[in-house]
Amino acid sequence: MQQKSISITFAGGDAGSWRVERMETVTGPALPRVSRIAVIEGRDTPLPRQALWFLRGITSYERYVRRAEHEMLVSRQPPLGRPAATCAALIPICKSHEWWQLSQDERREIFEERSHHIAAGLDYLPAIARRLLHSRDLGEPFDFLTWFEYSSTDTGSFEELVRKLRKTPEWVYVDREIDIRLRRD
Amino acid sequence: MQQKSISITFAGGDAGSWRVERMETVTGPALPRVSRIAVIEGRDTPLPRQALWFLRGITSYERYVRRAEHEMLVSRQPPLGRPAATCAALIPICKSHEWWQLSQDERREIFEERSHHIAAGLDYLPAIARRLLHSRDLGEPFDFLTWFEYSSTDTGSFEELVRKLRKTPEWVYVDREIDIRLRRD
Repeated sequence: MQQKSISITFAGGDAGSWRVERMETVTGPALPRVSRIAVIEGRDTPLPRQALWFLRGITSYERYVRRAEHEMLVSRQPPLGRPAATCAALIPICKSHEWWQLSQDERREIFEERSHHIAAGLDYLPAIARRLLHSRDLGEPFDFLTWFEYSSTDTGSFEELVRKLRKTPEWVYVDREIDIRLRRD
Repeated sequence: MQQKSISITFAGGDAGSWRVERMETVTGPALPRVSRIAVIEGRDTPLPRQALWFLRGITSYERYVRRAEHEMLVSRQPPLGRPAATCAALIPICKSHEWWQLSQDERREIFEERSHHIAAGLDYLPAIARRLLHSRDLGEPFDFLTWFEYSSTDTGSFEELVRKLRKTPEWVYVDREIDIRLRRD
């Protein structure tokens, strides 16, 4: 049987192989400040006891991507864990009640036809590796956790991508966002 | 803060207000036979100890329904718990790996343009009340749990609806299905 989804838990505290360089509250309530983040894979993997917070998400099937977009993403996107990708970003976000009340066609329209979310991401491939985790249906505080990995020379490109996305019509529906930048030891 | 989703657990055993009239394995592995099902709402509600199995799902946002379809559904669909609706069906299903590998546009095309899933359901409103629960992302054995409520005079209509859906192109992707029919005491 194929695995349905991968469960990832981010444990924020003073342990883990990713050192927090900065942590910024973009919108909504803050998240307690931590110095390190551990990334734990698997639903049943024991979690570190000392962490200040845990954020859990799962990989899932695609919600907005069309076949042609999927093929382009697959052909360009790099894997996680590239040795040169020593920089990472963890960006937990929540979308508003209004967003979730929209129908599928309305959400797709805002997401791609008006905000070009997929197209924007494609422009930064293969430099920036990305893993989207879904949290909303797990009863978690955030709806999505997005994890990015890139080399230190691509830091400027990553800032540009994040800036672009935050100006889109889609981002009007983001009512909580934390931006955590990390470096691997 | 609005509630993100409602968590429902079906506890199969010998307790609960719904008596099992028949339990049929339509496709794939069976589920242990039980005589009663209890429906428990809430993520943290204590569960009955004696149950033989638990199936959990959550209400979530709509994945395929367009705005116009949504409006039609909302205008016609009845609530759960109508006194006359003494019959119920619990139909847990899994969709195949192939289904989940499809992109959003391909899934929508099969679901509605080719299988008329939403349109078929609309034909049986307001007779048949329905609640779709998502389970896939919770690490549960099934992908969806659908719960239906109807009066005993609408049993024939319900059989017709189920028969129609099972003949659609969408159902080719269903690789496990259990059909449990119940009656309220």
